[in-house]
Order: sequence, then C-alpha cells, then structure tokens
Amino acid sequence: MSHLQDEIQSQPTVLANLLDKQRAHVYTIAEAIRDFNPAFVMIAARGTSDNAARYAQYALGIRAKLPVALATPSVHTLYDTTPKLSNALVIGISQSGQSADVRQVIRDAKAQGALTLSITNDPESPLAMSTDYHIALGVGVEKSVAATKTYTGELLAISMLVQALTESPYDDLAQVPQWVDDTLSLNTSIKDWAQRYRYINRLATIGRGYNYCTAFEISLKIKELCYIVSEQYSEADFRHGPIAIVEDGFPVIVVAPQGKPQPQMLDLLTQLQSKNAECLVVSNDDKALATAQNAMRLPAIPEWLSPICAVIPGQYFAMYLAGERGLNIDEPRNLNKVTSTE
Amino acid sequence: MSHLQDEIQSQPTVLANLLDKQRAHVYTIAEAIRDFNPAFVMIAARGTSDNAARYAQYALGIRAKLPVALATPSVHTLYDTTPKLSNALVIGISQSGQSADVRQVIRDAKAQGALTLSITNDPESPLAMSTDYHIALGVGVEKSVAATKTYTGELLAISMLVQALTESPYDDLAQVPQWVDDTLSLNTSIKDWAQRYRYINRLATIGRGYNYCTAFEISLKIKELCYIVSEQYSEADFRHGPIAIVEDGFPVIVVAPQGKPQPQMLDLLTQLQSKNAECLVVSNDDKALATAQNAMRLPAIPEWLSPICAVIPGQYFAMYLAGERGLNIDEPRNLNKVTSTE
Repeated sequence: MSHLQDEIQSQPTVLANLLDKQRAHVYTIAEAIRDFNPAFVMIAARGTSDNAARYAQYALGIRAKLPVALATPSVHTLYDTTPKLSNALVIGISQSGQSADVRQVIRDAKAQGALTLSITNDPESPLAMSTDYHIALGVGVEKSVAATKTYTGELLAISMLVQALTESPYDDLAQVPQWVDDTLSLNTSIKDWAQRYRYINRLATIGRGYNYCTAFEISLKIKELCYIVSEQYSEADFRHGPIAIVEDGFPVIVVAPQGKPQPQMLDLLTQLQSKNAECLVVSNDDKALATAQNAMRLPAIPEWLSPICAVIPGQYFAMYLAGERGLNIDEPRNLNKVTSTE
Repeated sequence: MSHLQDEIQSQPTVLANLLDKQRAHVYTIAEAIRDFNPAFVMIAARGTSDNAARYAQYALGIRAKLPVALATPSVHTLYDTTPKLSNALVIGISQSGQSADVRQVIRDAKAQGALTLSITNDPESPLAMSTDYHIALGVGVEKSVAATKTYTGELLAISMLVQALTESPYDDLAQVPQWVDDTLSLNTSIKDWAQRYRYINRLATIGRGYNYCTAFEISLKIKELCYIVSEQYSEADFRHGPIAIVEDGFPVIVVAPQGKPQPQMLDLLTQLQSKNAECLVVSNDDKALATAQNAMRLPAIPEWLSPICAVIPGQYFAMYLAGERGLNIDEPRNLNKVTSTE
C-alpha cells in the first residue's frame, strides 16, 4: 500500500485524536480571540493550507461573523512592507511550519500588536514557536508528498475554533470521525471507475460557499498526482466566463452536498448536462447524484462540516487515477514536501 | 474590425479621458477615506472585475498600507448573513453595475455603517447609485462580451485612488495613456506568431505581486475567447505543487516586468527552460525576454502601474488566437455581457 493510501485511510483515527487532544486548548484560544475582539482576520498560507484558509473564510465569516482576508505574502517578503494589522487576528497555516513567507507575515503582524495563531503539524517548528497561540494537528508524519490528513486536520482545527468562538453545540464535531469513516466506505468503487479517465488531460472542479475550498483542493490533488490541467471555480465565477470552455465530454467534478447553494448547483448540473459535459458529482443529494456519470458519495452531514468529508472521494480519485496512469503516487515529479517560497 | 480589436486599441484614448474627468473627484473620495480611517478594505467583484480587485490588494496593501479582503458574496446572498463590516471601506467593482451579489454586499455593508465606494462603467446603474461614492469609468459602451477597456479602466481608477490616498506625485499616472499606446505598438507581431498556438488545448499563466492580477486576467481572456483550459498562478503557489503539470512543450505565459519579483521570476523561467516548457514572456527586461519562444513587450514603466500595460499583449494574443481558431470574437459561446449570479 502507498503511503498516500495509508494516510487517506488513517483520517478517521487521526481526526478523532485531534478532537480529543486539542478541544480544551481551542476553548482557551477562542477566549483570547473574544477578548482581543479583532476587526478582521488575515490568514497566511500556501498550497493545500491556503485551501484550508478558504474554508475559514466561509466558516469564520458565516458562523463567527468575522471577515477573513487571505494574505498576500509577497507584500511582506518582496515589497518589504506590511499593511496595518494591529486590529487583526493573523493566522498562519502550514503543515511543516517552515514556510518562510508565512513566518514573515506573522513576524510583521506581531510587531504591530496583532493577535497571532498558527496551525501546524509540528509544534516545534519555527512557525508554531513564533505565534501567541498554536493548534497542533498531531496527525503524525505525512510521508506522501501530496497532503491529505494534514488538510482535513486543518479543516477540523478551523471548525473546532468556530465551534468554540460561537459556543455552539459540540455534538456535530464529535461525529466528524464517523462521517469521515462512512465517506471512505461509500467510495470504494472509485478504484474501478477511475480507469475511464486514464487519458483525460484537462478537467474543471466546481464548488460554492463552504465547499469552494473543496473544488480547489480536489483540483490541486489531481494536478499534483496526475499532472492534469485542472481548474477550480466557484459556481458563480464559472458561469461568469470560464463556462465557455465546456464542450461534449468535458469532465467536470461538481461538489454539491446538501446545503444552501443546492439550487444553484442543481441548476449548473442541468446546464452542464445540456452541454453533454461529463459530470462527476460529490454529493449526498439524490437529485444531484442522478446527473452524475460517476458518483462520489457523502453521508448526511451538516453543510458547514461537509468539506472535511467532501474532499475524500477526490483524494481517492486522484490517487487511483495516478495509479492508472502509472505514476509515482508518493513522490510526484517536480515536488518537494517542504517548499520554501519567498 | 471586430468590436474587441476596436476596444483594445481605444485604450490609450479612453484612459486619458478617465484621468482627465475623475482626477478631482478621486481626491475628494480619498479625503473621505482618510477621515473614515478604515481598519481594512473589502472588495466585492466577479470575473474580470475580481481581477482588478486582485490588483487593489497589492496597490492598496503596499502603497496605502490598507489590508484588502476579497469578499465572498455567497456569505451574503446564499447564507443570509454578513461578517462585521462597520470599520471597513467596502468597494464594489462591476462594469455594468448590475451584479446582484455585489449589490447585496454593499447593502449589508451600508446597513452596518461601512464607507462604500463603487467603480462602474454606468453611473446610472443600481450599484453606482447605491454607494456613498462612485468612480465612473466613462470608457464608453463595451460592445464585445470580453472585457478589455473596462478592465484597464478599473485598474487605472484604483491606481488613481492609491495616488490620491498616498498624496504621491501625479506624473507617473499622467504618462499611463502614452505607455499603453507604446504597448500596443510594441506588440503588432503577435498577429503573426499567434498561429503557432492554433492547436493548444491547455496553458498556464504566472505572475507575482502587482502582476498576479495580470496572470488571472490574461488567463480569463484566453478561456473566454479561445475555450482553452488555462490556469493562473502566483510564481510561489505554482512552485508549491502545480508545477508538476509542466512537461516538454507545455505553454506558459510568464508575466515578468521589471520590479521586485524579478529574481524569482527569472529563476522560474530558468526552471521552465530546463523542463523544455514553451515560454511566452510579458516583460520589459532583456534577460526575461531572452528566455522567450515569443516575446510580449512592454515599455519601461514603474512596476506598480505595469499591470495596466501588461495585460494588453494578452488581450491581443487571446483575440488573434481566437481568430486563428475560427471563433466568434465578439460573442463567445456560453457567455452574456451581464451575468446575474446570486
């Protein structure tokens, strides 16, 4: 078994462990944030962790009413300046905790008196050591270059923070590991049908709202593991121009679990069907799944937590498709586990 | 001549007109912003206008020290909520001023007491009428579905605002129309060499810092006009994973005018050459242009204003390539000029 497959399948266990180990500490962090009363949140992250930041834009924006900006690290590193951050909660997310540019944003924020928080998988890392508060993912070393369990760990850490900030019931969070386990069980057939896509060389992924991040992350896994040009969009942005690319048989992964964007997503699926697109649908909704050439199934789960499950069939799809294409699953070409960008 | 070509070539004139007509009014707006003293800026926009918002993230962040968040309109429209915006300057950008979701963000912001500004090409539009302040692009009706002069108009309006906020010298702004004219003259050869790309079906565009927006906008024009799957990245994000897709002959448009990111961009160009990628380089730097299979030339221009010129060879390239592919340049399939998304 590849490290990647092992890490995908470990997610129910490592996420249960994260809930268990960090619950009390996250309540402490939430209290500090309430005391600081930030005007807004700025998040610095790269790659997969930036997709977790996209989840935070919706989860913190909708549930905790906190506006979230995604940092532009080059403002800090290349242009040697910093926007005013004294009223901000500034969060750095990085599995390794090594990224030089994320660390620079945190340094600049601290110098201005911002409240700082990091989320990493290495509590001894420079990023973890540099912030006022830290959430340790504790999901174990990720041996595969493509991030899976650190991504769902980052999403869970963010949702724990949202739950603590809003003092909402904990019951749903407690069920996440079981839902993740159910998602793995529901998607064993991907192994069989992935071969249909052996020769595709382009693809689009679409999400909306909470699952905008899922479209990005599934797309990134497919690019990293399969070397396929894959584009990600919100349903709204896609219809605002890029939908022009869709022609007969064009493969589109549509992330459409039950929730607020469902009418728009069903409407998009109808439009894609009328263009004879090839739809792969990630959903727990029968109407959405009925439009699918191939289904990526989810259990019933509240929309705000669904991104933690919705990425998983995409992780499987990227892994099995890389296998069909005869590629090195654990060490894709051109990539290193820790990327140091400036 | 297509409407598109006419509109691309009208840019020097319409931008000169924008400078002339709005200069005094933009000073008034800047004074109101200084009085309001926002904690941060939130910008709501879709499609091409969202790419102008990306420019504002760097121009306002670096030069006016204002942190900029890009709005997530579905938070307002689908989830019926709003993050706290009372301390924010909230800007809506839309050429038509019709977008329902951008208008909703502005409505929610006003209800909380935020300072609001719109930038549109129709001063009678609902968006323009709804904000505290408005910058009218006044670039004339855009008949082609693909936006060109409204995009460079939006960039210029933002740079005028930055100049007024920072009370920096006006001389550089005054030269923009001439630099745009020079850019048009420098790129007449694109008509001849665009045919080489007649049969590509995928592409990547890369920028960094101020020209991150240029990578997005060139990519969007190519998607809209040529139906090619084109992905856009910052140089840093690209090397953090997606570079895995690059193989022999893979076409990449690298936006690398002289400026702070130049060492990183030159290093990327070297890496792309070692992978035998096909590089199209947008630059005014001889070293960068020397790595190019085909060059998209820029005049000497300060980096912060270069995005207004750097998109133009991309507009030409998308237009000529659509012509080589026998496509309808003014009315691409699947698109409408005004898109109403919720």
